[in-house]
Order: sequence, then structure tokens, then C-alpha cells
Amino acid sequence: MQKIIFGFLLFFSAYSASAQSKELINIRAYCDKQMHQWLAEYTSFLGIPNIASDTIHIQKNAAFIQQMMKNRGISNVQLLAPKTIGIPPVIYGEVIHPGATKTIIFYAHYDGQPVDSTKWAKGLHPFKPSLLNSSLENQGTIISWPDQTAEINPEWRIYARSASDDKAGVMSILSAYESITKCGYQPSINLKFFFEGEEEAGSDHLYEVLEKYAPQLQSDLWIICDGPVHQSGKKMVSFGVRGDTHMELTVYGSKRPLHSGHYGNWAPNPAMLLSKLLSSMKDDNGNVLVKGFYDDVTPLSENEKKALKEIPSPDNQMKKELGFLAQENDQLTLAESILNPSLNINGLQSANVGKLSSNVIPTTATASLDLRLVLGNDFRRQQNKVVAHIKKQGYYVTDQDPTEAERKLYPKIAKVILSDGYNAQRTSMDLPIAQNVIAAVKSTTSDQIVLMPSVGGSLPLFVFEKYLHAKTITVPIANHDNNQHAENENIRLQNLWNGIETFAAIMMMK
Amino acid sequence: MQKIIFGFLLFFSAYSASAQSKELINIRAYCDKQMHQWLAEYTSFLGIPNIASDTIHIQKNAAFIQQMMKNRGISNVQLLAPKTIGIPPVIYGEVIHPGATKTIIFYAHYDGQPVDSTKWAKGLHPFKPSLLNSSLENQGTIISWPDQTAEINPEWRIYARSASDDKAGVMSILSAYESITKCGYQPSINLKFFFEGEEEAGSDHLYEVLEKYAPQLQSDLWIICDGPVHQSGKKMVSFGVRGDTHMELTVYGSKRPLHSGHYGNWAPNPAMLLSKLLSSMKDDNGNVLVKGFYDDVTPLSENEKKALKEIPSPDNQMKKELGFLAQENDQLTLAESILNPSLNINGLQSANVGKLSSNVIPTTATASLDLRLVLGNDFRRQQNKVVAHIKKQGYYVTDQDPTEAERKLYPKIAKVILSDGYNAQRTSMDLPIAQNVIAAVKSTTSDQIVLMPSVGGSLPLFVFEKYLHAKTITVPIANHDNNQHAENENIRLQNLWNGIETFAAIMMMK
Repeated sequence: MQKIIFGFLLFFSAYSASAQSKELINIRAYCDKQMHQWLAEYTSFLGIPNIASDTIHIQKNAAFIQQMMKNRGISNVQLLAPKTIGIPPVIYGEVIHPGATKTIIFYAHYDGQPVDSTKWAKGLHPFKPSLLNSSLENQGTIISWPDQTAEINPEWRIYARSASDDKAGVMSILSAYESITKCGYQPSINLKFFFEGEEEAGSDHLYEVLEKYAPQLQSDLWIICDGPVHQSGKKMVSFGVRGDTHMELTVYGSKRPLHSGHYGNWAPNPAMLLSKLLSSMKDDNGNVLVKGFYDDVTPLSENEKKALKEIPSPDNQMKKELGFLAQENDQLTLAESILNPSLNINGLQSANVGKLSSNVIPTTATASLDLRLVLGNDFRRQQNKVVAHIKKQGYYVTDQDPTEAERKLYPKIAKVILSDGYNAQRTSMDLPIAQNVIAAVKSTTSDQIVLMPSVGGSLPLFVFEKYLHAKTITVPIANHDNNQHAENENIRLQNLWNGIETFAAIMMMK
Repeated sequence: MQKIIFGFLLFFSAYSASAQSKELINIRAYCDKQMHQWLAEYTSFLGIPNIASDTIHIQKNAAFIQQMMKNRGISNVQLLAPKTIGIPPVIYGEVIHPGATKTIIFYAHYDGQPVDSTKWAKGLHPFKPSLLNSSLENQGTIISWPDQTAEINPEWRIYARSASDDKAGVMSILSAYESITKCGYQPSINLKFFFEGEEEAGSDHLYEVLEKYAPQLQSDLWIICDGPVHQSGKKMVSFGVRGDTHMELTVYGSKRPLHSGHYGNWAPNPAMLLSKLLSSMKDDNGNVLVKGFYDDVTPLSENEKKALKEIPSPDNQMKKELGFLAQENDQLTLAESILNPSLNINGLQSANVGKLSSNVIPTTATASLDLRLVLGNDFRRQQNKVVAHIKKQGYYVTDQDPTEAERKLYPKIAKVILSDGYNAQRTSMDLPIAQNVIAAVKSTTSDQIVLMPSVGGSLPLFVFEKYLHAKTITVPIANHDNNQHAENENIRLQNLWNGIETFAAIMMMK
């Protein structure tokens, strides 16, 4: 499927010009030499379909990864199966040194998002990797795989499902370990490798593995490799994710749709009631007005505050790209905004608009909300603050459609459905091990490292804390514009090379 | 289809116990005698399908009505066809007296709302009339058509499409004329009959008939028989309708849906923007805050104010029936509310709610509004006031999706689509001819007559004013709970008998 011939190039060394350790210089030289071979191995890996429910191909992926690990001299390679039958296994391996005082587990996932191959650009296929000379958005075109003597341009991209999310994690972690050993070095810490196969299907059984294999999975830190680096293209280390939960509000008017001529402006209009209720939740500058909404937030430490200040602002670039001029809160940057708990409307519905709209007073109006949580918030407590706010606006709150009796008793009625959720997770930047990780990543480049106290998105990282009392730090490697979760997913080669180098530095950290 | 045998009953005389003129007493006696025959004729009439687009059946309806008119001795019976080919004709007839000083045209429509017969209750069919011993809501059941000697209970109902809307108008107007002549009386005024066949399809070509036959359609007044009487069950005369127009507002956020974790509370959320915009249009008590919204309203005359005060309040009964406790504006009764211009939300939409909702910041949010207009309002001026309000809230207003350039220039963008519309129509109660109509209707009952300066709904009555400079007064006869426009349409027999008597009194007025 791939026509790759091996060559020897120097993109690793060419990339970072800063003063580096002797070890890193040697590792880079090895990387430059291995590039063609890795490209061949990676495209074979990407050629195996990897939807979590596709059991046969999932087994092939698992076998492929086990072979990659064995080829690299990793010990105790095995499958960790969840208690539930038929769930993709975790592929585990380890490198233990009797004298090591620390253990780090490297996490990535090998399953990918479901695909609709008809949506991929012409000539591309999710499980037949293609090489392009640039991104599609940048008018990139498909090119031949390079022969052994050809130069590999680091701006080239591989297009395939999971090219960035998250086989890139598996590939770069294992190749980092290979580089170290091939250069004759030994990691100073115990390494464990943990590659999940159910992440894009919701990680619903991850806890079963953590519970079952808890003794084997003890560590000082998990390094999570998933997601893209900062929009600026700079390397990133992030120390947390936001928690997430949902609420659905429905307010009520008449039991049957009423003619807006005969009853309009006399009968209550739930669409207007909902507008007023939602409006009451935020001021015009995006600050949430729900009482105590920001109260539980654990303040940032001095280090975190400093890191936050140093995050390069992608705000103007993003606004141009996204087509808006005014952000919701003009006092806060994007990086600052995502360190706050948030209240966001995901959707609104009341009767119909457009061609389906008619002269009615709707009977109900519904809004779906999501609440993002930061360290200190509890998702139930946060939901309850919003419920208290709704009550304060004069609403009787129920969790089902109102009864006849309730309709006769209460002037304003809201049904509030509270979803399940989970809390935020944040590892302190101030921990010595966190400082070591930062120093290791910094050692690979003279450029700035973006340190995110937390990213805006949510992942159930709390399971590591809950079942193993473990700490997690995320070190993403993919390019920001990788089309993760969508058609035309891709990885920029330089991001893959950077990833290998980054993980090698972390494995070598003191 | 119907088994009706003639009998002689006294519901007309039994119904109104007040002192009445000799003429009315005689007319009632005739009505009582004719009841079985009318029932037979009416059920035959209702058995002819009457959707405006069903040309063949529309012709049968037209032929049936022409025959009804000829049987009753009405002159000059003819079809008035709109200029546009294939549109249902108007059936016209007249009774002219050389000495008469006034001419009244009686209007009703013979076409009906489209039907979905599968939605009708078991045993019922829109074009196979059934007799029930009470309303379905009141657990009425289908009964046999009465034989000639059987008593006809005035609480019985006929279930069929157009039983109330609006073949009841045709039937009662023509039977009123029959009663007068059969009793040996002559109307004191010229009568013209005008039965439209395109009303439920929007009366789009009515103006063509009014224009083409203008000389023939000169009159001092049109009496419109359409719609239900007052919710209290009392007879009603209404002097106007509200105008109506629509607006659709769409506000914008990012060009593509954004992840609510990564960008929530930084990127603008159009659902929240729309909620705030809509909220700004009304205070918590339902008063429209759009500048000048109530400015153009023509004040009520003393007579109209007096009539308004005397309207029995159905408010508490309606609220119970409709299942809400708090009306939008607690300072105004339903009757008062509908004499104000209104702003009503017909529908809201932004992304999705419920099972379809996802963690996005929607790209747009849309609201459909209707504006009802009262005498003095101009629909374009009223729309422009709302547009000015939107601009005042900081929005750039356009009539299409924003361009890239507009997105870069304006922090808040609203697309506003203005629909066509029409203004309100109201005939002054103070006119001598209006007073004569009121007196005539009053003469038929000792009960109160509800005089509505205007009803809340909208009809394009302005066309009569525009093309003929004519005045209109509406005299509805159907029961309030007739399921007009929906499945299980019905008429309560007493309402039909009352209608015949009412129109007879109007035809005999001085």
C-alpha cells in the first residue's frame, strides 16, 4: 500500500536550534535516520480500521501494537481486558528499573472516531493513508510516498482516520522509547505504556480496567497524549480539563397551542418566558448572574497565574477565522474564559420558525444548557445553583410535565431535567513532578512552551483519580488544524517528529 | 344518507322569553315548523366536499347554493367569477325594492379548511355528517337522525367539515330570508347575498371579484357571518378585526458550530443574544417596550369603551380550560388585550434540544414574530419600529445572511425578514347603521349582546374598504367550541337556529 524507501535526513536537528543536551542531540540524529522507516510503520498502522465496535479490526490493531512494543524491547506486553466481554482491550507494557524511584504511565488510545468515507475529499480514504504536500485548506495535493533518498518535507501531512487522534500518540510514545534505547541510554524512571481502545466510544469500561489492574497501574503520574497543541503551533502541556454536565429547561404556557390573534399578549408565551429566564442568567458582558456561580472555584496558584499570562493569544486570529468580531466577555481572553465555570446554551426550541411557523402561542419552550466546571466545582452543586436561580425568578420547578393541579397552583412552571456529569480535574503545576515534565519539554526547544492550567474541553480524567488516586498531565502533539473527529483527519509530519522528541525528553527526565 | 321526518317543535319560541315584536313571533313559529326540513337540506349541503382546490365539488356546492337561493325566490342568482381562471366563484343573488333606501350585503363562505379524515373521531367523517347528542368533549355519542315526529334537542350537534365554518353562514342567512317571506313580510332594505368559495385558501382573488363587479356590489354595509360567538355563549356583534404581519429575526455567532468546552463563554452564543434581544422587547408585565409601539392607536369612542366594559369576562373560565394561572399582562382582561397592538413569539429555534442536542455553541438563533395591528397602525410602520428597536440594541440589521465583510465590521448582526401584511379594519359603533344592526340583534333576546369593538383575530376585511369603500360588521353564529379549522368540526343546533333568527331580525331592520 505504501511505497517508502529509507533515507537519511536532518529535520529533527534542523528544527530546534537551541542549546541542547548531548543526549538529545544523539536522539535527534537517530530520529532523522529512522524517519523513513517510521513513516512506513505508521502508514501500515493507520491502514487498519479502528472503530471501537469493529472487533475484528480492533484485534488486528492490538496485535500490531503488541508487535511494535516487542520490537522495541518493551517487557511484559499484554492485553488488559475490561470485565465486560467484547470491549476493546488495553495494550500494556512496561520497562522497570530496580533502582528507579519514579513511575510514569504513558497513555494514548488506538481507536478512532466513526467515519463516513463518502465525506472525505476526492482521492482520500480514512483507512488508506495518503500523503499530501500541504493541508487541503492550503491547497495541498496528494503526492507519492518518498523513496529512500527523497527528502521528507516536515510540512507534508498524512491523511487518515486517527492520523492525529490518537494513533499519533501510540506511534510517538513507542518511537521515543526506541530512540532512547537505540542511542544506548536508559530511562531514569520506570515506564509503563497503556493504550486504550474505547476512548472514542466514551471510555465507558475504562474504570473496569483501572479497578481490576490497580496494583499493576500504580504510578507517580500519567502522561496523557491526546488532542492538539496550542493554536499558535507551540508545544503545550496542560494540567487539567473542565468537568461537564447538562440541564434541560422547559417552561409552559397554555395546554394547547393558541391562536396568536385571539389570545396573543393575554395568554402567557413560553418562548418569551424562556427568553427572559435565560437572559436573567447572564449580564450583557457574559458574566453568569446565578448566585454563587463562581464561588467554589479553587484559585490559581502563582505559577498557574504566571503561565496563564504567558499563553500566546490566538484570540484575534480565531475571531477572524470564525467570523465574529465581539467575544461574549470582552474583559477575558479565550485562555482566561476557559478557566471559569461556564453556562452555555446548546439549543433552543419552541414551536416552529421559517416556513413551518404559524400564528400560534407555543405551549412550551425548551433550552438545553451545558455547564462546564473548573477545579472546586461539584457538578450537582453547580446544577443546584441554577435551579435555585430559576426558583428565584418565580418558577415552580418540577422534573416532569406539570399536572393539572400544578397548573392551577403555580403562575410560572419550569421542568428541569438534570443530567449526570463529572467534575473537573487539575494537577497542580507546582508539584515537583509537574515541574520536571515542564523542564523536560522545555529542553527540546528554544521556543515558548504553552502551559495550560486547564483546557476548555472535558475528559473523564477524574476516573484516574477516582480509581487509582493518580495524577494526570496532558502532553498533546497533533497540529491544531487536524480535523479531529471529522472527515479529512490528518497529521503534519513535523508534529509527529516533535512528539517523538518530546516524549523521549520526558522519559529521560530526572 | 339522512333519515329525517318532519315534525313541529317550539325551540325557537321556547328559547327567548323576552317581549318580542309580532313579526319575530310569527317568524319563530315558521322556524319551528321548518326545522326538520332545514336539517335535511343542511346535511345534504354538508355532504358535498368543499376544499377550495377541489374544483368539481366546488361546482356542486355552487349549484346547490344557487338552487337554495332560487327555491327561496331570490332574484338575479348568478356566479361572479374572479378574473383568474379556476378560482371558486362567488354565488350572488339579490332582493331589490324600488323604495328601499339602504342596501346590506350578507357575506358567508362555502369552502372549508382542508381535512385529514383519519384524525376525526371514530364513526365521524368530514363529509358524511353525523348527529351527536352532545359535544365529544362532553361525552356525546352518535345518534340516529330524528324522524318527523321526534323532538329535536337544541343541544344536539352536527359533526362535519364547515358545519360551523362557514356553511352555517350560508344556511342561516338564506333560511332567515325564507322565514320572512313565508310569513308574508317584506324586508325593508335591499338585500344582496355574497357567498365566497376561496376564504379558507386565503381569499387571494376576492379583490378581483370586488373590482370587477364593483357597481353591482354597492351597499351601505356588509354583514359578515363567520367565526364563533363569544366564549360566554352570548350573541355577539363585532365591528373590526386586527391587522397582521410577521417578522423573522436571526442572530449570528461563529460561522461554524464550536465546541462549547473549548470556546464556550468566549465565542458569542446566538441563543443567548436572541434571548436578550427578545427580552428587551417586553417588560415582565407584557408591555411592549419597542419605542412608539402604542403611539398610532386610534382611541376607542365612548360607545366602544362602554361596550368593552360590558363584555362578560371569560378570563377565569378560559384560564382553567387552558391550564395556566398567570396571564401575560395582569392589568388587562382578554377583551382589553386584543384592542392593543401585539408582539408575539410564534417560534424559536437554535441548534437542537433534547436527544439531538450536543455540546455546541450554535451558529444562529431564529425567532418568528407576529405583530397584530389595531386601528391606526400601519403594518410597515409597526415593523419599522421593531427594526429600529433591534438597531438600538446594537445590531446591524440586514435582510440576508451576513457577508464575510459584514462579519468583520459589526459586533452584533441580525437578519430581519419582513413579511407582507395588512392593517386592521374597524367600523365605528356610532354609525346609525351600526346602531340599527345592534338594535336588531338585541330585539331577538332578553340576554345581553356582546359588542366587540374588534376581535383579536385577523381577516383581510380591508379589501372591502379598499375596493368598494364599504363598511363591514361581523355577526358570527357558531358555538365557541366548534373545532373550527381542526378535526371534529361541529355546530350546536341552537346556534344555527339563533343565527336564522338573528339574520331575519337584521333583514327586517328599519
